[in-house]
Amino acid sequence: MSDARLIYLPLGGAGEIGMNAYVYGYGKPDQERLILVDLGVAFPDMDTTPGVDLIFPDMTWLQDRADRLEAIFVTHAHEDHVGAVAHMYEKLGAPIYARAFTANIARRKMDEKGYSEETVRTASAWPETIEAGPFRVGFAPISHSIPESAGLVIDTPAGRVVHSGDFKVDANPVVGEPFDPDMWREIAKPGVQALICDSTNVFSRHAGRSESEVGPEITRLVSEAEGMVVATTFASNVARVKTLAEAGQRAGRSVVLLGRAMRRMIEASIETGVLRDFPPVIGPDEAQDVPREHLMLIVTGSQGERRAASAQLARGKYRGLELKEGDLFLFSSKTIPGNERGVIRIINQFSEKGVDVVDDSSGLYHVSGHANRPDLEHMHDLIDPKMVVPMHGEHRHLRAHARVAEAKGRASAVAVNGMMMDLSGDAPKVAEYVETGRTYLDGSIKIGALDGVVRDRIRMALNGHVVVTVILDEEDEPLGEPWCDLKGIAETGASNAALVEILEEDLNQFLMRANPKTLADDDKLEEGLRRIARQSAQSEIGKKPEVTVVISRMR
Amino acid sequence: MSDARLIYLPLGGAGEIGMNAYVYGYGKPDQERLILVDLGVAFPDMDTTPGVDLIFPDMTWLQDRADRLEAIFVTHAHEDHVGAVAHMYEKLGAPIYARAFTANIARRKMDEKGYSEETVRTASAWPETIEAGPFRVGFAPISHSIPESAGLVIDTPAGRVVHSGDFKVDANPVVGEPFDPDMWREIAKPGVQALICDSTNVFSRHAGRSESEVGPEITRLVSEAEGMVVATTFASNVARVKTLAEAGQRAGRSVVLLGRAMRRMIEASIETGVLRDFPPVIGPDEAQDVPREHLMLIVTGSQGERRAASAQLARGKYRGLELKEGDLFLFSSKTIPGNERGVIRIINQFSEKGVDVVDDSSGLYHVSGHANRPDLEHMHDLIDPKMVVPMHGEHRHLRAHARVAEAKGRASAVAVNGMMMDLSGDAPKVAEYVETGRTYLDGSIKIGALDGVVRDRIRMALNGHVVVTVILDEEDEPLGEPWCDLKGIAETGASNAALVEILEEDLNQFLMRANPKTLADDDKLEEGLRRIARQSAQSEIGKKPEVTVVISRMR
Repeated sequence: MSDARLIYLPLGGAGEIGMNAYVYGYGKPDQERLILVDLGVAFPDMDTTPGVDLIFPDMTWLQDRADRLEAIFVTHAHEDHVGAVAHMYEKLGAPIYARAFTANIARRKMDEKGYSEETVRTASAWPETIEAGPFRVGFAPISHSIPESAGLVIDTPAGRVVHSGDFKVDANPVVGEPFDPDMWREIAKPGVQALICDSTNVFSRHAGRSESEVGPEITRLVSEAEGMVVATTFASNVARVKTLAEAGQRAGRSVVLLGRAMRRMIEASIETGVLRDFPPVIGPDEAQDVPREHLMLIVTGSQGERRAASAQLARGKYRGLELKEGDLFLFSSKTIPGNERGVIRIINQFSEKGVDVVDDSSGLYHVSGHANRPDLEHMHDLIDPKMVVPMHGEHRHLRAHARVAEAKGRASAVAVNGMMMDLSGDAPKVAEYVETGRTYLDGSIKIGALDGVVRDRIRMALNGHVVVTVILDEEDEPLGEPWCDLKGIAETGASNAALVEILEEDLNQFLMRANPKTLADDDKLEEGLRRIARQSAQSEIGKKPEVTVVISRMR
Repeated sequence: MSDARLIYLPLGGAGEIGMNAYVYGYGKPDQERLILVDLGVAFPDMDTTPGVDLIFPDMTWLQDRADRLEAIFVTHAHEDHVGAVAHMYEKLGAPIYARAFTANIARRKMDEKGYSEETVRTASAWPETIEAGPFRVGFAPISHSIPESAGLVIDTPAGRVVHSGDFKVDANPVVGEPFDPDMWREIAKPGVQALICDSTNVFSRHAGRSESEVGPEITRLVSEAEGMVVATTFASNVARVKTLAEAGQRAGRSVVLLGRAMRRMIEASIETGVLRDFPPVIGPDEAQDVPREHLMLIVTGSQGERRAASAQLARGKYRGLELKEGDLFLFSSKTIPGNERGVIRIINQFSEKGVDVVDDSSGLYHVSGHANRPDLEHMHDLIDPKMVVPMHGEHRHLRAHARVAEAKGRASAVAVNGMMMDLSGDAPKVAEYVETGRTYLDGSIKIGALDGVVRDRIRMALNGHVVVTVILDEEDEPLGEPWCDLKGIAETGASNAALVEILEEDLNQFLMRANPKTLADDDKLEEGLRRIARQSAQSEIGKKPEVTVVISRMR
């Protein structure tokens, strides 16, 4: 297969942080056998995706080639890596491989959607490998902020590829395997063609801190607290949850886990054996009888999510528990950019209750799960690949990461979603541009990002919505006057009369003057009525609403 | 007047950062003569106030007592202090006092709304004072991030009050007067009853840095740059703009100011004499002929605002100028929480163009305009008041600030919007609770925050909007079938048929089965149709849309 090639095609996660989906292929052009690494989601926001439940990468390219897809490999159980497996499985249909903890989480998702648990296969750690067409893939343990993360060792006829997955260099991650430079050196020994590498923290210039370093600070804080202590972190950060629980235990407090995700993650960790000696926990009912100074709650909602436990506790009671003056609330987590408002809202609500809030502004109570720049350089050196292709980052991260690689003389390139890279040569080069995008889960339905549904919502949110109704008789003459319903629009405008009346009057004027041709033509009539409604609103309230015209004809 | 009292009533700015409006009163209860300090705006966001243009404090309480209002004093020209003067003037009607630069900005606002420039009176600096009923008010210069900020010295029959305004302790603020501890000591000498004090930076534990400290860093960065340099900061931070312009000049670059606010602020500074020796600037047309390595653009849009110059440059050309690979973009500003997404969007767009972006993550290119905790303590000590009332902060800031004061043995209290405090005694005590809230400028119209307009917009944005139209004949029998228009809703649901058809069919079923009583009653009919539309949508697309029912009767 002299004209066979090794390709890498990010469909999600390169040019954004979230919804990771990376395709590798090997074979003759357009006949490559394919594998998919990760299949995650991104989360919506009110600015760009109001009402949307989840965001998926658009997998059309891969769905159209599903017959060439050998397998799906999931590096770890964060939602941006595993969140879409069940939603997207129907049209991909390949076996899903993951290590035990990740597989446990993936199976729960498959099960919820009615798929057999056998769709997900548990992979052993490197040096064991899985054959998938021309690929042989091993899950090499790597430290991150969730148990059993893996970097993938992908052997291909064109050489070895290392796909780092999300990782940090942590010699003591509290739960799970430490970063093992010797193992990576072994993996690198035969020579590595390409390192596809996490870029998230490329702008952090200092070496990363170990998960184990937050323990003493948290222990000190909890031991000094006088009232109830409530701490929040990412539920998936099982090591942190353990550290928090142990700090509670050491201070003679009973530990309560609140929030579905929190209980599910700890459950999965215990089921799969990644978590041992977790302090005993009690339920919220039992906690009612424990004096507050002997309680330690560990709760979901570190990003200020409105429905999570922390937001509910900030608003009032949750599961019978309530914070009071003198209690302590700890954010043991970073606030992801974009979530600041929600987090600050909670802090202020607690402040109103007299609860002291400690956040991570001092950097004492949280460490990141991603490799900082010096750690990325360390990884590049360990693997010593022919080329480095940055992934898992916005454009700015990928670009900075490519520079870091190039500064040490390694070939690199910024490859964003849709850029199919040929990795067969001495440097990554663009082979093809593939159309990519996003799919939204909206309620129970998938809609395309460009369907216009969300655009219409944003327009209604910004401008309000006027519904104009007219009825015409058999001769296309208006039957009565047009009328308007307003939603999301000021009731009274500049002339101090009800806006709805002014609009109706202006629309009626238009109808009375309209010529028979206009009245007989739905499109023309609609256009005219919309224009009048918008003009009339503009002069009354200074903005042009969205307008829906409903024309009923008696003929 | 033995039963006269001195009151303080925040109507905006206490319990939030933004829309400052603080009332002081002196006299017998309910007969106090009043003054207002500041009258600012807050800015909307998509999460809570989609489509809104500006947010004002609800001034109803003061409007109802406008006959007792002696004057309005504006401490400085930031929008959250002066932004609402013209919008709210009609119903308040008292003279507005400010120092020359602030008055210049305020007059432009009054002029735009058709008010005489004489509504705004220029005040000289302390020790000159203005008499306003029982009050005598002096504008004492204080350093901040805009020229001619003032703390107010408010003499009342119940003693002296110092209203700090926004301030920092800066001995060398580059433009404007340095913080003058001797002056404040003089002011404190007769004894101060209450210090009403800025709380913004109470969580910053280190002493603040001086505006003059960013100069060398900026100069170094600009001198090392090879392509075009573009810098953004708050337009009102005239000192920073000057520092940036001088750095450009020193590097042999022609300076261009882009963005209306940028030019207006510099113009006002020069007109009022607060800015001297600003480097010469050229227009964007002239800049076309200057080699890019000799250009320095200073632009608006430091918070990622979509329509400002930086966002436009990030998207493409602006005023004939365009950034290219090798150019440098500098954010010389802090990102205000909530604006992260917009700023990050711009950084990524520049990254795609190959433009290097330097932001303030290292803290080298920006300093804050507010006093940090040690500086607040310094101010408390200088003024040595009987009581400290924190203002200009969210609840968490006010609470922490009150603790700082109490730690040094001074009386304090958390007073949020609507809490009228009696300052006459030895400690602030609540005199009354007043209803407060927010008013929105929406297009050209003011609407109440609780009018339901914005709530409806948010609901439409989250759920989409279905319009159901039915026509009934003279006998209240349906004339034809009902129909639906969808906006912001998926077109196809679970049964793979057009959602609109399924809704219409379900609604028709309902109509056919409805009893004459329901058909004859608009409310009942509407309720039934809405319920069916929501149920039907829920089962098809998994969410319940907003529904507007339009019933036309031929009778």
